[in-house]
Amino acid sequence: MDLNYDTNNIFARIIRGELPAIKVYEDEHTLAFMDIMPQMPGHLLVLPKVEVVTLYQLPDEAATAVLATIKKVGKALEQAMGVDGSSVFQHNGSYAGQTVPHLHFHLLPGPLKMAGAHATVPVETPQLEKIAAQIRDAIAYPNSPHSDTLA
Amino acid sequence: MDLNYDTNNIFARIIRGELPAIKVYEDEHTLAFMDIMPQMPGHLLVLPKVEVVTLYQLPDEAATAVLATIKKVGKALEQAMGVDGSSVFQHNGSYAGQTVPHLHFHLLPGPLKMAGAHATVPVETPQLEKIAAQIRDAIAYPNSPHSDTLA
Repeated sequence: MDLNYDTNNIFARIIRGELPAIKVYEDEHTLAFMDIMPQMPGHLLVLPKVEVVTLYQLPDEAATAVLATIKKVGKALEQAMGVDGSSVFQHNGSYAGQTVPHLHFHLLPGPLKMAGAHATVPVETPQLEKIAAQIRDAIAYPNSPHSDTLA
Repeated sequence: MDLNYDTNNIFARIIRGELPAIKVYEDEHTLAFMDIMPQMPGHLLVLPKVEVVTLYQLPDEAATAVLATIKKVGKALEQAMGVDGSSVFQHNGSYAGQTVPHLHFHLLPGPLKMAGAHATVPVETPQLEKIAAQIRDAIAYPNSPHSDTLA
C-alpha cells in the first residue's frame, strides 16, 4: 500500500503479536486496544491491519471493515463506561499530530479533553485491564442503552 | 433510521437545500461544506445524507460512502491548503460535544487547535468562498502531492 510504510512501527508490531497490547476486539481486518496514555478512562485505539499510514491510503474494503469495528467498539465503550456519547478522531501525518505511522482511530467515551491526542503519562496495566474487561463484556453482551434506532 | 431524528435540524435543511452552505463536494449519498465557525482556515464538514444522529446508527453502505468522501475531500483539503497532514473528528451525542443532531465529520488541515469543535465566531462568506474554491479545484485536479502510495 505505502512504499514508505515502516514495518517496525509499534502498531505493526502489536498487530503481529510481537509487542503486548490490552486488546478489546480483534477480527481478520481490524484490532482495537486500550491507549496506554489515555486522555480519559476508556480511551481506545481502532486500527485496520492493512499497512497504511493515513486514511487516504486506506483501500475502500478496509475502510468498511474499520468503520464497522469503530461502530461495534464505540457503542460498547459508551455502554461499558455508562455514558451517553463518544468521540472519534484520527490524525493523518506527523504534521497533523500523528505519533505512530500506522493509521489509527482514537475513541473516547465523551468529548475531547485536549487538542493533543494523548496524556503525558501512561496508566498502569491493572487499571487498563479492568476497563478493557468491561468493554469486552459490552461487546459480547450489547444491551442497547441507546436503542433509539430501528434494527 | 432514527425514530428521534429531528428533520428540521440545520444540516437536514442544508441537505434539502432549504438553507445555504458553501459546498465543496456533493454526490448522491454525501455532502461536504465549509464550517462557518472554523477552528482554522479550511475547516470542513462531511455528512452522509441519510438521516442519522450518530455514527452508531449509520448503515454500513452509507458508512462506506461517507468514508470515500472523507478520503477524497480530506486529501484535496491538504493539497488546497498546502499542508502535509490533516485530522478527522466527530462527536456522537450532545454529551460528547455534538452540536447539530445530524452525523457529521470535521476535517482540519492540520492538528486540532482546540478540544471543542468550533471557534466562537463565524467567518465571513467571502473568506470561506475563497478557500472553498481552492478545495473544489483540488478535488477536480488532484496532483497527488502525497503520492507515496501505489495506485
